[in-house]
Amino acid sequence: MNLNPHISVDCVIFGFSEGTLKVLLIEREKEKGLQVGGHKLKLPGSLISEQEDLDTSAIRTLTELTGLKNIFLKQYSVFGDPGRLKPMEDLEWLCRTSGMKVDRVVTVAYYSLIKISDSVITDKTIWHPVDKLPELIFDHNHIVMEALLNLRNEFHTKPLCFELLPKKFTLRQLQDIFESILNIKLDSRNFRKKIRKLDYLTELPEKEKNVNHKPAKLYKFDRRRYEKKETPLI
Amino acid sequence: MNLNPHISVDCVIFGFSEGTLKVLLIEREKEKGLQVGGHKLKLPGSLISEQEDLDTSAIRTLTELTGLKNIFLKQYSVFGDPGRLKPMEDLEWLCRTSGMKVDRVVTVAYYSLIKISDSVITDKTIWHPVDKLPELIFDHNHIVMEALLNLRNEFHTKPLCFELLPKKFTLRQLQDIFESILNIKLDSRNFRKKIRKLDYLTELPEKEKNVNHKPAKLYKFDRRRYEKKETPLI
Repeated sequence: MNLNPHISVDCVIFGFSEGTLKVLLIEREKEKGLQVGGHKLKLPGSLISEQEDLDTSAIRTLTELTGLKNIFLKQYSVFGDPGRLKPMEDLEWLCRTSGMKVDRVVTVAYYSLIKISDSVITDKTIWHPVDKLPELIFDHNHIVMEALLNLRNEFHTKPLCFELLPKKFTLRQLQDIFESILNIKLDSRNFRKKIRKLDYLTELPEKEKNVNHKPAKLYKFDRRRYEKKETPLI
Repeated sequence: MNLNPHISVDCVIFGFSEGTLKVLLIEREKEKGLQVGGHKLKLPGSLISEQEDLDTSAIRTLTELTGLKNIFLKQYSVFGDPGRLKPMEDLEWLCRTSGMKVDRVVTVAYYSLIKISDSVITDKTIWHPVDKLPELIFDHNHIVMEALLNLRNEFHTKPLCFELLPKKFTLRQLQDIFESILNIKLDSRNFRKKIRKLDYLTELPEKEKNVNHKPAKLYKFDRRRYEKKETPLI
């Protein structure tokens, strides 16, 4: 595969567990035969191949890493600051591992929403709470923050929370997701009152299992019903 | 200015006049000393400079062309199909005019909304109705269509129409803009009923002038009042 040393894709993969929004990070690949590299964390991504479209590169990166297909993926921004490949140590690592002379890379950034329970993740990866990120390579902390802002904006008007939740979920889980992504605290009673008015949430005749508190009712999202709703014009 | 032959920016500049949404096109630059080139139309844009950030490149392109500053500009997508620099005649033209060997260019696309009346446009440019575009170079027709779809989506939830309208406008102009961008026909009575409920539209004590029909009332958009509105959570 011929790589293009000028353009890359990076994927911010969001997941949700233990009441917290998380992002999937991988260890900087160790270099063959060398003891350097490793330790520092990065977003999944790579230089694009000369023969590949951008979306194809991103989908390949995701599928290889998570084993999932047909997942929510959105190209949300491009990062092209001429000085973004800092510090020098990270740039040297990139040149050594890619075997190419790299001066400047414009990276096309995607974010993705997955159900952590469905994914098959290798032991080189780690789910990290998004509000407590360590220092990542290059401008990857900035790329994650921009993805989060973008997600927050979209969250108000699109049913994105259901990409992160299991198929059957409790209202507590739904509230946790809103609070975590929007970084706010919601009043449970008001939240439930609002939620019950939404006709695209179906209450199931089941309750959660294996919990050490009173089992809560389970709900599911009815996408067909949601899509029938009209968007107000103005 | 050192150009980067791998990455470009392209700008889809929308304007509104005569009841129609238009896009700003420029003639393919004529080559020095040659009779070829010209005629075919393209979007404003250029290869980025090695020293420049992407947004800076786009802003420079826009300002040079329209004389406007502080205008609405949104990076909405990236086009990186390995086969996008077709037909061959267009690619040859790009290589000759840039003086560089170009194989593949990933272009970062922006759209912009301007008030046609405010802009200073040179005689090399043309405002073209967006629904009747001629064949543009490369994939520029596709880039315009994607910008339009993106604009349509945003139009439902953001006050973008006021970027295109003059500061003082009639309700007829407002309705024209909605009909043109969303490609629908609205019932005038219902539309006006809805509009009158919006507290961020201020009726002015003036009417339009120099028209050969009954002058209509003028309105203006109150951005401060608009921004006070709360976005519904779910």
